[in-house]
Amino acid sequence: MHKLIIVKIGGNIIDDKLKLSSFLKDFARIQEAKILVHGGGRLATKLAEQLNIPQQIIEGRRVTDPETLKIVTMVYAGYINKNIVCLLQANGCNAIGLTGADGNMIRAHKRMSDKIDFGFAGDVDSVNEYFLKNLLGQKLFPVIAPVTHDGKGQLLNTNADTIAQEIAKAMSAFFDIHLIYSFEKSGVLLNAEDDTTVIPSLTPAYYQQLRKEQKIVSGMIPKLDNAFSALKGGVKKITIGKAENLKQMIDGISGTGIINE
Amino acid sequence: MHKLIIVKIGGNIIDDKLKLSSFLKDFARIQEAKILVHGGGRLATKLAEQLNIPQQIIEGRRVTDPETLKIVTMVYAGYINKNIVCLLQANGCNAIGLTGADGNMIRAHKRMSDKIDFGFAGDVDSVNEYFLKNLLGQKLFPVIAPVTHDGKGQLLNTNADTIAQEIAKAMSAFFDIHLIYSFEKSGVLLNAEDDTTVIPSLTPAYYQQLRKEQKIVSGMIPKLDNAFSALKGGVKKITIGKAENLKQMIDGISGTGIINE
Repeated sequence: MHKLIIVKIGGNIIDDKLKLSSFLKDFARIQEAKILVHGGGRLATKLAEQLNIPQQIIEGRRVTDPETLKIVTMVYAGYINKNIVCLLQANGCNAIGLTGADGNMIRAHKRMSDKIDFGFAGDVDSVNEYFLKNLLGQKLFPVIAPVTHDGKGQLLNTNADTIAQEIAKAMSAFFDIHLIYSFEKSGVLLNAEDDTTVIPSLTPAYYQQLRKEQKIVSGMIPKLDNAFSALKGGVKKITIGKAENLKQMIDGISGTGIINE
Repeated sequence: MHKLIIVKIGGNIIDDKLKLSSFLKDFARIQEAKILVHGGGRLATKLAEQLNIPQQIIEGRRVTDPETLKIVTMVYAGYINKNIVCLLQANGCNAIGLTGADGNMIRAHKRMSDKIDFGFAGDVDSVNEYFLKNLLGQKLFPVIAPVTHDGKGQLLNTNADTIAQEIAKAMSAFFDIHLIYSFEKSGVLLNAEDDTTVIPSLTPAYYQQLRKEQKIVSGMIPKLDNAFSALKGGVKKITIGKAENLKQMIDGISGTGIINE
């Protein structure tokens, strides 16, 4: 099987023009088939402030009322997505920017919860893997904004880590997947304050042990749960690390590798 | 050759939720290959007001300073484009929302003018007709926002009528094109105040005569110049009329037909 590299970049890179531009140069240079999934960044929060739309974050997730959905759609699917596409094009990478609604790529449903109403937050039901496979076959490289749809005319705000994971699982039918979660640290750290304490590789057993010892910072837990779930779902290789080290992560010499054993 | 219907919808439809939803139902029902090009609407102006970004319109075109380009990208490529795609998907039409940057579809350059600096306004250089042909071949229906790129990392705000025209000309190599400009009136009117005075068909000679007699309202002139230029460029059929009459325009029983003789 051919290799497919799926990279998720988070807000800290998106908010930093120089870092983003340098990251996109590295991404453009990847020779294998590739998909980029991006998060939001502070821009949506900033725009909400300017427009006096109060934002509520519960359990790390933005409560998406109708006005917030509008902002999310404008900022993620419009401003951020198209700027990334435009910069990749300038670097010779034939990018195509998409949400889950485009080509019916990702179907989701509005999150149901007895306790909390997350508004228009979507949980993924299915990924249209043939659509993505066709694009890659035409040497088009998808840049995916964290917005999905329910097939009934409703856009939904969806976590970018989850989108990356679901795409990775779905595409593992056709490709050897290397899923890379890039963020601001050099990997999963044994000491959250010390960027030199990167754990080179993490098995499910070691992860459970570290959790028991409370050595995993709470913010990392959803990301790692996501990663292990992707591994179970057929994804070959997962790396968590710093966006600046993209090439080294692809080569397996940077970041934390999430492995089965 | 197969038929390709290219429809441009303007701001008045986009600003009206009920009309937009009804129009998209009609668009989804079109059996032939189809492309939708949309304009902006009042939303960009409204957002600029809310954010205290002064807007300057010269000769009917928005002067696009960096902050305005950001708004245009958010509103056109984000909010409007993705809402249209999502509604078309709900109507069983496999839409894919794009700007000119996506798939390197439309290259443009920053408009040069000795007199007026239009900022990041783009004039079209080329359309990637193979990219669009491939999408249509996969039964994917492009929904195009009026944003292009220069290939050097700069997004550009580009007139939607012009985009529709340039796409129509480029695609005439592969398809019999019917280009439909839909707007708020029933067609080109002999009396601008009376919607029953639609001119059923307009030849270049008749158009010149009406212009001499000053019977064409100034706002229609760029639209009609565009239409005649498309006709010269190989487009088979052009209709200008009311969005509510989309089906009738396709059938040739509503609107003003722009014809060679």
